[in-house]
Amino acid sequence: MLDTQLGLDSETQNGACVVLKTARDAGVTVCFANPGTTEMPFVGALDMVRGVRPVLGLFEGVCTGAADGYGRMAGKPAMTLLHLGPGHANGIANLHNARRARTPILNVIGDHTRAHLKYDAPLTSDIESLARPVSVWYRSVACEQDLAGDTSDAIAAAMGGARGVATLVLPVDLQSVRIDANDGGELRAQTPRIVEPAFDASNVAAAAALLRSGAPLVLLLGGRALSEAGQRAAARIASAFSARCYSETFPARTERGGGLPDIDRLPYFPEPALEALAGRKVVLAGALAPVTYFGYEGISSELAAPEDLLTLAGPNDAADAALVALADSLADDVQKQGDCSSVAVPWPVDDGPLTPQAVGRLLSNALPEGAIVSVEGGTCGYPFVTASAHARRHTILTNTGGAIGQGLPVALGAAVACPERRVFALQSDGSAQYTIQSLWTMARERLPIVMLIASNRRYGILQTELARGGLCTDAPNSQRLTLLDDPSIDWLALSRGYGVSAERVATTSELAQALERAIRHTDAPCLIEMCLP
Amino acid sequence: MLDTQLGLDSETQNGACVVLKTARDAGVTVCFANPGTTEMPFVGALDMVRGVRPVLGLFEGVCTGAADGYGRMAGKPAMTLLHLGPGHANGIANLHNARRARTPILNVIGDHTRAHLKYDAPLTSDIESLARPVSVWYRSVACEQDLAGDTSDAIAAAMGGARGVATLVLPVDLQSVRIDANDGGELRAQTPRIVEPAFDASNVAAAAALLRSGAPLVLLLGGRALSEAGQRAAARIASAFSARCYSETFPARTERGGGLPDIDRLPYFPEPALEALAGRKVVLAGALAPVTYFGYEGISSELAAPEDLLTLAGPNDAADAALVALADSLADDVQKQGDCSSVAVPWPVDDGPLTPQAVGRLLSNALPEGAIVSVEGGTCGYPFVTASAHARRHTILTNTGGAIGQGLPVALGAAVACPERRVFALQSDGSAQYTIQSLWTMARERLPIVMLIASNRRYGILQTELARGGLCTDAPNSQRLTLLDDPSIDWLALSRGYGVSAERVATTSELAQALERAIRHTDAPCLIEMCLP
Repeated sequence: MLDTQLGLDSETQNGACVVLKTARDAGVTVCFANPGTTEMPFVGALDMVRGVRPVLGLFEGVCTGAADGYGRMAGKPAMTLLHLGPGHANGIANLHNARRARTPILNVIGDHTRAHLKYDAPLTSDIESLARPVSVWYRSVACEQDLAGDTSDAIAAAMGGARGVATLVLPVDLQSVRIDANDGGELRAQTPRIVEPAFDASNVAAAAALLRSGAPLVLLLGGRALSEAGQRAAARIASAFSARCYSETFPARTERGGGLPDIDRLPYFPEPALEALAGRKVVLAGALAPVTYFGYEGISSELAAPEDLLTLAGPNDAADAALVALADSLADDVQKQGDCSSVAVPWPVDDGPLTPQAVGRLLSNALPEGAIVSVEGGTCGYPFVTASAHARRHTILTNTGGAIGQGLPVALGAAVACPERRVFALQSDGSAQYTIQSLWTMARERLPIVMLIASNRRYGILQTELARGGLCTDAPNSQRLTLLDDPSIDWLALSRGYGVSAERVATTSELAQALERAIRHTDAPCLIEMCLP
Repeated sequence: MLDTQLGLDSETQNGACVVLKTARDAGVTVCFANPGTTEMPFVGALDMVRGVRPVLGLFEGVCTGAADGYGRMAGKPAMTLLHLGPGHANGIANLHNARRARTPILNVIGDHTRAHLKYDAPLTSDIESLARPVSVWYRSVACEQDLAGDTSDAIAAAMGGARGVATLVLPVDLQSVRIDANDGGELRAQTPRIVEPAFDASNVAAAAALLRSGAPLVLLLGGRALSEAGQRAAARIASAFSARCYSETFPARTERGGGLPDIDRLPYFPEPALEALAGRKVVLAGALAPVTYFGYEGISSELAAPEDLLTLAGPNDAADAALVALADSLADDVQKQGDCSSVAVPWPVDDGPLTPQAVGRLLSNALPEGAIVSVEGGTCGYPFVTASAHARRHTILTNTGGAIGQGLPVALGAAVACPERRVFALQSDGSAQYTIQSLWTMARERLPIVMLIASNRRYGILQTELARGGLCTDAPNSQRLTLLDDPSIDWLALSRGYGVSAERVATTSELAQALERAIRHTDAPCLIEMCLP
C-alpha cells in the first residue's frame, strides 16, 4: 500500500508528497522556501509529510544562499522552493556561488500547470534557459509516474561526480495530482545512487616522483584537501620537501586554527599570486588550475603555465585521501606528524580606533571552539583569515563564485545545518545589502548568528580597481558610483527593522566587549556595526 | 576629428565613451547602475562624457525596475549598468516585468576581457542564456569597430517593433580600449533608426463591421489604447454600441481620473473574468488575447474563444490611433464627446480603522493633479483603482509581468523621469521586501516619493490560493510559509535605516493627515506604514 510506504494519510496524498517523501528519505530535511501560487500544493504537502523543516525567506537569494551554506556544512543537499522563472532568477546569483563551490542543492522550482504553458501567461518564461547556467542537472517532471524517479535522480546528480545544483521543475498540476494508494509502483520513493568521491592512484605516483625529483614546488589545496586530514598531510609533505602550501583563494570550506598548519591563501591580485608560484611546479590537490580573478592587460590569465601543473586530485575527488596516500607513499621522507602546526594563541590588540587588522584579530580571539565563520568582503576578510590560524578550531566559508550577497545567507544556512556550533558572519557593508532580508529569517528561526558588518560606507574594491585602471577615483560620477555615504546606512535601525538587536562600535575595546555580549545570546541573532574609516 | 564629434578630451577617450556618447545622442540620459570591477572603464567614462546621469542602486533589481518605471513614463530607454552574469541575474525579475510591459531599456552588462573568458574564472557564466529570456535583442560587442553601431542597434531594437529590453554586453577590454582621435570612421556615434508605431486600417474596417452587426461586444484595451485619446475614443464607441470596455488586468501604464471614462480592469480571478466576457465578441485594442493568470483545474486558460476575438491593434501598435480612427469611421453613430465621463469628486470616508477600501479612497482623494501611482499588491491595489476614477488626472503603473518587487523601483524610475510630477507607491508589505534597497536610492536622489506600505503581515494572495486549492490555511507549515508576523517587520526602523522618514497609521483620519504631511515633502521621500488587520 502506497500510503503506508509514504507514511501518508491516503485521503490527502498528492504528487508533492511523493517528491517530499523521496527527498526526505534520501536525507533532505530542510526546505528554504519563497513560494508563490504555483507552489501551494507543495506548501500543503509540507503539512502532510513529516520531517522536512520549511524555512521562509523574504527574497529568493536568501533561500539559495542558505541552501549553499547548509550544503557546505551538512555535506548533503537542502531543498529550495522557488516560484517560476522570475522567483528562480532572484536566486541565481547565489546558485552561481553554489555551483562554483560544488555545493549539493536540490533546487525545486514550481511551474504553471502543463496545459497552461502554451498561452504565455504573464509569469511564463524560459526557466530552462535561466536555470542551465547554474545547474549540473536540469529536468522538468513530465508526468506523475516520474515524480519519485526524477527527484531521486536530482539528488544523485547533486551529490554526484559533477556535484552541485540539481534543478527540478515541478508543474503545479503534478504537485496537486491525487496519488492512488493502490497503484503506486513507479510512485514509490526511490533511493538515489550516490557515488562516493575517490582519487586516482597513478596521480599519487606521479606527484611522488615529482617531489622526489627535487623540483621547487607548490601544493595548491582546494575542495576536500582543505579538511583537517588533507591539510595535515599537505603540511607534512611540504615540510619534508620544502614545498610551499597554498589554499585556493576562495575556498568553499576550510578548517582552520586549533593547531592546524597555517596555510595561506593564494593572493587575490595577480602580481603577488604570480610571485608566489614563480619558478615552481604546482601540484593541484582539489584545486583548479590557478587563473587570475579578472583579466588584466599585460598579465597572463594563467598564473602557472600548463606544463608546470600536475593534478593530484580534481575538485570533485577525494583530494584529502589522495594527500594522505601521497604522504604515506613518501613515508621515508615524511614524518607522521609535521612540525609546522600552530596552536591557539590570542592576539594582543591595543586599544584604539578599529582597523581591519584589529577586527581580524579580535574576532579570531573571540571564536569559541567549533565556530563557523562566513566571510564576505575584502575589507576585513583577508586580515581575519591571516589572524585566525591562531584561533580555536573553526570552519571558514568564503564566497567561491564571487556573486556578492552571499555571506549572510550562507551563515543562515550553516546555522540551520549545525545548531550545536556558533556561527559568525564577517561581512562588508556593500555586499550585505544584496540579501539584507536574511536578517529577518535569522530572527524568525531564533538562530544565534553574530554578524559583524564592516561599515566603511564605500565599495572599497571598486575604488582600488579604478586606481589600478589608471582612472580617477575622485571624479564626481565615479565617486557617486563607489561611495555609499549619502545617506549612510543606519545599520542599527535596519537591523531592528528585521527584529535583530544591534549595536555600533568604533574602537577595539568596544568591539571586544560587544563580541563577548554577542556570544552570550543563544537564541537570537545579533548584529555589530563596526565603524571603519 | 573624432574628439570634436564626441565632445571628448582626446587624451582620455575610450570605448565606453563611444557607447555613452552614442546612447546620449539617441536620448539616453540616465544610467541606473550597480557596477563591479568589469565596469570600471564605463564608470570612468561617465565622468568624461557629459549628459548621462548615473543613479546608483544597492541591488540590481532596483536598477532594472527603475529603468522599467523610467521607460514607461519617458517613452524612451534608460540604460542599466550591471556586473557580469550574476549581477544581471539579480536584475532579471524586473527585466521580466519590463519585457511584459514592453518597456524600452538599454540593458548594459559588463563582461570579462575577451581573452579571459576561456579560463572560466569564478565570475564567468553563460550571460546569453541568462539574458535571452528577458531580451528582445541581445549582442555581445565583438570588436571596437562595432561599439557605436551595436549601441545604436540596441536602442533601435528597444524602441522598435518588438519593443522591450535590448541587452548589450560590453567586454571590459572594449570599454577601456583607447580610441584614436584621427581614425574614427566606424567609431562615430550613430543615430538609431526608430520605427514609429502604426495600425492596420483593414482591422479598423473589420471592427466597424462587427460593431455595426449588433453583436454583443467587449473592447479590451491595453498598451497605447490606455492613453487619454484611446480611452476617450473607446468610451465613445462603447456608449454608442452598448459595448463593454475593460482595461487589461495589469496595464503597463494607464491614464485615469480627471474626467476620463471609468474603465474597469478585467478581473484577475478566472470566474468573474469569464463572466465579464461571456457571450460577447472581444475586440482587442492593444491587448493580448485574454488568458487566465494561472492555470486552474477545470477552467479553460482562454478567457475568450479564438473565434470570438478580433484584433483591432496589437500591443506594439498605435492602438489609440486605431480607436480614434474606428470612432471616426463610425461618426454617424458615435458622438464627438461621449457622455460616460466621470469628474474628480472626493470620496467620503468615515473615521475608523483602516480598510483596503478606505486606503484606496483616501489616496484617491489626496492625489495632486498629474500624480503617478505605482501599484503593487492585491491588498490595496484593486480598491485604489476602483476608487481612483474619481481622482484628479493621474497615471497608474502596474506590475504587468507578475514578478514581485516591482512597485518601489518603478516609482523610483518614474520620479527620475518626471521630476515635475508627484509619485506615489501603493505597495503590499510582502512584495516590497524583494527590492527594499530602493528606499536608499530614493533618499540619495532626493526624490519626493510617497510610499504607502499595506502592512498586513502576510502573503494574502497565497492564503487565498491555498483556500482555492482546497488546502488548509492554518496548518503549521502552511502558516509558517504565508504569515510574516514572527517577527513583524518594523517599517519605521527599516525606513530610517535607509535614510527615509516614516510614520505609522492605523485609522482613516491618521492616514488622511499623514498624506497631507507627506505631500508637503518636496525634496525627500517618505514612507507611511498602514497597519491593516
